[in-house]
Amino acid sequence: MTRHFVTTIAAAMLISSAAAAQTIYPIDRAEMVAGAKFDLKVEFAGEVTAGNASLTINGTDAATLFGKAPELIAREDGKPQSALLLRELTLPAGHYQVQASDGSSQQSVRWTVYDTAPRRAKNVILFIGDGLSPAHRIAARLLSKGIREGKSFGKLAIDDMPQMALVATAGSDSIITDSANAASAYATGHKTAVNAMGVYADRSASPFDDPKVETIAELAKRRLGLAVGIVTNTEIEDATPAAMLTHTRRRAAYDQIVEQLFAAQPQVLMGGGGAHFLPKEAGGKRKDGADYFAKFRDAGYRIATTATELDAVSKDTPPKLLGLFAPGNMDGVLDRRFLKGGGVAKNPDQPDLTQQVAVALDVLSKHDAGFFLMVESGLIDKYAHALDMERAVYDTIMLDNAVRQTRDWAKARGDDTLILVLADHNHPNALVGTINDDMSAPPSGTARERIGVYDKAGFPNYPSPDADGYPARIDVSRRLAILSASLPDHYETLRPKLDGPNEPTTPGDTPGTFKANDKYKDVPGAVLRIGNLPAMMNASVHSGEDVILTATGPGSERVRGSMDNTEVFRVMAEALGLAAAKKE
Amino acid sequence: MTRHFVTTIAAAMLISSAAAAQTIYPIDRAEMVAGAKFDLKVEFAGEVTAGNASLTINGTDAATLFGKAPELIAREDGKPQSALLLRELTLPAGHYQVQASDGSSQQSVRWTVYDTAPRRAKNVILFIGDGLSPAHRIAARLLSKGIREGKSFGKLAIDDMPQMALVATAGSDSIITDSANAASAYATGHKTAVNAMGVYADRSASPFDDPKVETIAELAKRRLGLAVGIVTNTEIEDATPAAMLTHTRRRAAYDQIVEQLFAAQPQVLMGGGGAHFLPKEAGGKRKDGADYFAKFRDAGYRIATTATELDAVSKDTPPKLLGLFAPGNMDGVLDRRFLKGGGVAKNPDQPDLTQQVAVALDVLSKHDAGFFLMVESGLIDKYAHALDMERAVYDTIMLDNAVRQTRDWAKARGDDTLILVLADHNHPNALVGTINDDMSAPPSGTARERIGVYDKAGFPNYPSPDADGYPARIDVSRRLAILSASLPDHYETLRPKLDGPNEPTTPGDTPGTFKANDKYKDVPGAVLRIGNLPAMMNASVHSGEDVILTATGPGSERVRGSMDNTEVFRVMAEALGLAAAKKE
Repeated sequence: MTRHFVTTIAAAMLISSAAAAQTIYPIDRAEMVAGAKFDLKVEFAGEVTAGNASLTINGTDAATLFGKAPELIAREDGKPQSALLLRELTLPAGHYQVQASDGSSQQSVRWTVYDTAPRRAKNVILFIGDGLSPAHRIAARLLSKGIREGKSFGKLAIDDMPQMALVATAGSDSIITDSANAASAYATGHKTAVNAMGVYADRSASPFDDPKVETIAELAKRRLGLAVGIVTNTEIEDATPAAMLTHTRRRAAYDQIVEQLFAAQPQVLMGGGGAHFLPKEAGGKRKDGADYFAKFRDAGYRIATTATELDAVSKDTPPKLLGLFAPGNMDGVLDRRFLKGGGVAKNPDQPDLTQQVAVALDVLSKHDAGFFLMVESGLIDKYAHALDMERAVYDTIMLDNAVRQTRDWAKARGDDTLILVLADHNHPNALVGTINDDMSAPPSGTARERIGVYDKAGFPNYPSPDADGYPARIDVSRRLAILSASLPDHYETLRPKLDGPNEPTTPGDTPGTFKANDKYKDVPGAVLRIGNLPAMMNASVHSGEDVILTATGPGSERVRGSMDNTEVFRVMAEALGLAAAKKE
Repeated sequence: MTRHFVTTIAAAMLISSAAAAQTIYPIDRAEMVAGAKFDLKVEFAGEVTAGNASLTINGTDAATLFGKAPELIAREDGKPQSALLLRELTLPAGHYQVQASDGSSQQSVRWTVYDTAPRRAKNVILFIGDGLSPAHRIAARLLSKGIREGKSFGKLAIDDMPQMALVATAGSDSIITDSANAASAYATGHKTAVNAMGVYADRSASPFDDPKVETIAELAKRRLGLAVGIVTNTEIEDATPAAMLTHTRRRAAYDQIVEQLFAAQPQVLMGGGGAHFLPKEAGGKRKDGADYFAKFRDAGYRIATTATELDAVSKDTPPKLLGLFAPGNMDGVLDRRFLKGGGVAKNPDQPDLTQQVAVALDVLSKHDAGFFLMVESGLIDKYAHALDMERAVYDTIMLDNAVRQTRDWAKARGDDTLILVLADHNHPNALVGTINDDMSAPPSGTARERIGVYDKAGFPNYPSPDADGYPARIDVSRRLAILSASLPDHYETLRPKLDGPNEPTTPGDTPGTFKANDKYKDVPGAVLRIGNLPAMMNASVHSGEDVILTATGPGSERVRGSMDNTEVFRVMAEALGLAAAKKE
């Protein structure tokens, strides 16, 4: 078995090094559901002519197979490099060897296109805890369920599910993924590069011409008429939500992403990020002068910008709903409910993720054809980057509440809905013990002497959680010590940030670098901690461990063992019978 | 549901604070399999008389129920504190409320004793990767399977199993567990405190009189006549292997643990730790002058001290086998096979864990009654403590090889064996990217500028693995960057340690403290990193996230969702039908 793998690797490496002249998208070992649309691109190292260039699939000329000739881009971006391009292709199930030649060298890739059995799930709901790490999970359980003598008083809804798998998260370019290519792998079943979603990141300069692959939401709508909902508490045009429906290799292209979201016309769009729906001249950030609030309204969307408005609008169960509750990211539950930090003063009436999900389920379940819904608890990641562990954990509890509520909803319907819960990538943080203010540091000691490890960690003394699982206070004397293995320069206070989310760094003296934020310099016990990341990093980074996928509902039995993040797409495609749909 | 939990917690806290006068072992919410032996102890805060002290179970006097009166210890350890003690009890299935009173205050705990269905597994094999973390898993996969464009060329045997669960690891005294109480939870189904195994850690001074609970190995032998095997590459008297058969609250009591291991007479004992089998005067470390090599030999054990001897001995498939291949810990596979560092010069002929397991399976499977076998890849933890990521990862690959080989063995027998694989606790390390020697740090830059994150991480360039999944070199130019969130003061070199395992600290100037080991001071690019742990810590510490449990074979379907570490015992007890055995 081992020998077999070694041979496979060696052979694969041989192919790739012997004929690096052409790059073919989709890449080698791509897997697609039969009938899914994709663009096929061949990038030649130099200039080729129509006479020299060839492209075959299982030995058949591409033009013949697809019924249309590839476009030959003679000089891509005005450079001496040619490309072949075929857009909006589909293939029936089978194994394909794709071969491209410039007349002298050739490159080949293999694709697998798979069929599906008939549809089993009416709806698919994909919960993503952005950057949700094992440390967040255990902390959320400790705080929201309580523990005594080592035994928890309850289980998280995100953990206590019938199916579980480990999901590998590497991107096509790196062992470390970002939220764009991570979400894109779930949404499309294709690996891509950091910052890209819904496309393979090609070499051309434009971030909007890259070879596209169809998303689960697009497929579900096009082939089965499903309604589509996207719910987050980050900016709705941020990577994770955007990857469900949009195609660009530049996740930062917010204006264009909003444009694409509008073109896709999902039934539900809820989150923050309103600034990119309004032109600068109207107080927004759009550079094209367009008012997407008006466009959505004109297209029949009901619009809510506060929790109160959302509550009111939801009473009518409108067919289409746009909820934008903050110009940028919404605020986390710790600020909204308890501390009132962050943007809460400016936007005091933001809905909780559970309210957003409840309304989304109401609106979407009116569609007889079923629906696809993605729900992101997206600030877990932002807080983890900022070394703000309490806020990340509270938003993990919020995710758990949203999942529990949704599982109850699905159960009441007779379990016709596939529910998946997972992170998109990990964060390098860990629960190493407790921070114990009552532990007396020796006279010469520093803050680190208050970190209790092993038996000295004991149990934290947060107050009992409220009905939603939130302790009312985080500034207790024995707190969870969640520390990160990747650090920018920062002042470590070992104290929760009560006035607002942590801001560990500020721009450094050299452009493009960052330094410790002086704001925390005088916090009692603060220690300047020299980071271990390049100075260009302003925060803790992502890490590359597998993430945990839990699942329930029809089709969830495919969730087991060791999976690739692209297989999450396949689980959804199989549950919806996306390939079978064509034949019916 | 949430409200219900809150009420439970509040009620539980009330009981425990209102009547803290008595401590009862087993503790509240203990779960036991019917027929398992346990000691019952009540510790009173003060002195009580036989007339004042009472102990009832479901309202029945303990003496009546168990047919013997509890021993009253009037002044425990000569102090004004009394205790009641009953040893070697068993209970049939049921729910029990145990109430103890000193005449004025009372305390009560609840136990659940459960029945099992009939036996389903002939054998049970428990693989423990000590301190195996998600970062070790992904690194082991990257190195042993290879990856291209983000997709692995294979799966680890430890990941690719039909059942998976998250296992909570907290001990009875702390959210952070050590290897003693972690292994004890698996072995006995009871939580206990750091450093304890097979007992509840009581208040008396002696580490050998604590209330005992029976281990899975003892139960399997006593009730079903199963053979017992314990295989590790740490000292055989170290916490994880010892917890399978011994009872002490002091894991460091190596001499007595060897005594207990001998008394238990398991069919297979293999690992390091030979020094505590020999008296000081014979070159060992025993203080009692006993020669346990001789004792084991006299008791009919065949003994092997090298791989060659093990190979020779195994040809006879002896009924009982003791293999001790190093005075202390054995060496990891990276040193044994490639670098020849650590103790390899002194003990060049140590077996690989896969050889140990193969021999153990041969010996044990001769026993018609079936067997219980625990296999530990124990150095993963030691290396993780020492911030030696390469050695930890190579020993993770070795664990994977041992598991694959055992799964193949079980498959060939018709899958009559429950196989469980898990860690005992986590380590706070994470794969944050790669260390890239080719990344040019700016003139003013430091080693940290060579850490590639996100797309700059790319893929490591280790050579293709050999037939056993090991790349022949670790000092490549683009290496995995596995960093820890818990650090003692140390010199960070960002380079693999080719001459022997990393030794980050040496004793500090203040007794009981540690400082950075000067040995690495002059390594090019070394940076003195000030730790974030108390100065009494000489290494990175354990972390408290759930560990991953994977399983296959009869009875493995109980492995799912969110579990407590005590439930791992229950999975094994149910697979063996331990309670049902009595009735047959």
